Amino acid sequence: MQNKQILLASRPVGMPDERTFEIREAAIPDLSDGEVLIRAVYVSVDPYMRGRMTDAESYIEPFPLNEVITGGVVGQIERSASPDFNEGDFVIGTLGWQEYSIAKAKEVRKIDPAAAPISTHLGILGMPGLTAYFGLLDIGKPREGETVVVSGAAGAVGSTVGQIAKIKGCRTIGIAGSDEKIRYLVEDLGFDDAINYKTTPDLRAELKEKCPDGVDIYFDNVGGEISDKVHARLNRLARVPVCGAISTYNLKERDIGPRVQTLLIKKSILMQGFTVGDYAKRFKEGAADLGKWLGEGRLKYEETVREGFENIPDAFLDLFRGKNTGKLLVKVSDPK
Amino acid sequence: MQNKQILLASRPVGMPDERTFEIREAAIPDLSDGEVLIRAVYVSVDPYMRGRMTDAESYIEPFPLNEVITGGVVGQIERSASPDFNEGDFVIGTLGWQEYSIAKAKEVRKIDPAAAPISTHLGILGMPGLTAYFGLLDIGKPREGETVVVSGAAGAVGSTVGQIAKIKGCRTIGIAGSDEKIRYLVEDLGFDDAINYKTTPDLRAELKEKCPDGVDIYFDNVGGEISDKVHARLNRLARVPVCGAISTYNLKERDIGPRVQTLLIKKSILMQGFTVGDYAKRFKEGAADLGKWLGEGRLKYEETVREGFENIPDAFLDLFRGKNTGKLLVKVSDPK
Repeated sequence: MQNKQILLASRPVGMPDERTFEIREAAIPDLSDGEVLIRAVYVSVDPYMRGRMTDAESYIEPFPLNEVITGGVVGQIERSASPDFNEGDFVIGTLGWQEYSIAKAKEVRKIDPAAAPISTHLGILGMPGLTAYFGLLDIGKPREGETVVVSGAAGAVGSTVGQIAKIKGCRTIGIAGSDEKIRYLVEDLGFDDAINYKTTPDLRAELKEKCPDGVDIYFDNVGGEISDKVHARLNRLARVPVCGAISTYNLKERDIGPRVQTLLIKKSILMQGFTVGDYAKRFKEGAADLGKWLGEGRLKYEETVREGFENIPDAFLDLFRGKNTGKLLVKVSDPK
Repeated sequence: MQNKQILLASRPVGMPDERTFEIREAAIPDLSDGEVLIRAVYVSVDPYMRGRMTDAESYIEPFPLNEVITGGVVGQIERSASPDFNEGDFVIGTLGWQEYSIAKAKEVRKIDPAAAPISTHLGILGMPGLTAYFGLLDIGKPREGETVVVSGAAGAVGSTVGQIAKIKGCRTIGIAGSDEKIRYLVEDLGFDDAINYKTTPDLRAELKEKCPDGVDIYFDNVGGEISDKVHARLNRLARVPVCGAISTYNLKERDIGPRVQTLLIKKSILMQGFTVGDYAKRFKEGAADLGKWLGEGRLKYEETVREGFENIPDAFLDLFRGKNTGKLLVKVSDPK
């Protein structure tokens, strides 16, 4: 049995391309005691992975060159040399862009396919859902009646942020990049309104019109000029959880814009960057709430699923092309 | 008896100049019941006043045109029509750039000239001291052994921040603009080290050398390029109380620089703008601690005192010329 793996072949400058990735076939080693062999079912592609492709100081190490790119995977136990797992069990772990992974038993976590669709552990019940939960609630601290603006609103994180804001009684405005996404946010997810930043003649004016009382929380997934314009609408004592800056991840030049200090002072505004790992000790609390809301039908989610192992790199690039609504996944095998 | 007053004659673009201010003589009206007539002794000039000269949205209203510029004043009761004050009492209030002010009794607060020099109520025991106290302790949350960098370190706020950081057991590095200020910070105030940003060949390199463990708290009084360079040295989970941006207050063009989002995310950094008014309910707590430390000799302060009412505008401009060490005051009459 051969394994297919995708390696980081070179560090991209700007948008990754065919030189960035290399597909390799490799033999699968035998299992040692306590290890399991996992067949990937869903491979996650996430915007933060772009940062790891660059060799810069960050909260996690850059991906090493010529090694398998790692990321979230939901898979099924193919062979087990651990008493903790049986063949056929579904698991989640940070396994990477490969068809088969070998992991120590403690490196993966069993998931129950009867409780929720297995893919949700990479989305609404997984890292993106927890990112939305802690960023909005812990940094944003929403209060009933406040106005929340979310950029990248149709993505895995943004769509969850907006719905949690609604659960907390906020007026919620999404910013996204297609009319289909705008429709989805308002009609399917219950956002109060949404703005298509690609077609609006004047984002600043539309923000003013749709947020007549200003913005109390801006959950920032995109950075760049969109965020500059939302900043201008922030209220006194506003909170800005800074979660992502996807508009800038593939910039070749420096990311230059208005400095924020004077704005922050004038209105006593808080900006706080975070990653979900900051809240590792509280994952149980977040997962419990997300699961409850999902069960009650108060949280909805969408998945954009690409098929086929070879399409992982292209699916990853779709994130930056704005192709996905909700969580973007690649299905690489069928669950058995 | 005639009163001299300084009015805002026009809104400055860039650095204020002779067209910005107008000195006027006016009669002093009679007192109504409950009012007091105050003779100004010390008039405070503060960087934040520059913001009020511009007609932009802010946390306080802009100064109205052709009216007396308001600001902190320590004075002495000249005549009283209130049972709460006697002639000769020292008071502090937001009175403005004029030799004599009429105020309602509740608009001023009595101060005790025996407890501390009266001028300290405009400095170390007043707004600048409280600004340092709450910004550093409430937003910065210093922990023993952490590295604190303060810009504008020789000013009224910065010099207090650095000393409180030392009281809290931090390694403290100041950034200021003259060798005399650098000497003052290290030799007189006990900063661990200081950097002259005007003469350093490479601020980035000097920050790296003087903060080998990175920067945990950056108390920002200046904004602009100095802050860009300190940001690059921030540690994971760093806190940045954003207090002032004096380097940008007189800019004619927009304040453009590196956007901070990616940095904030990569290191889970908090930036929070504030003004001392945010902490109005806790002033007693702050003043008590500052008074105690001052009494124990653990806090020191410097004052730069200009003499003469007519010199108030020029003294104000000295703030932006980097002329002051510690609190900048204008003495306009002798206490009796």
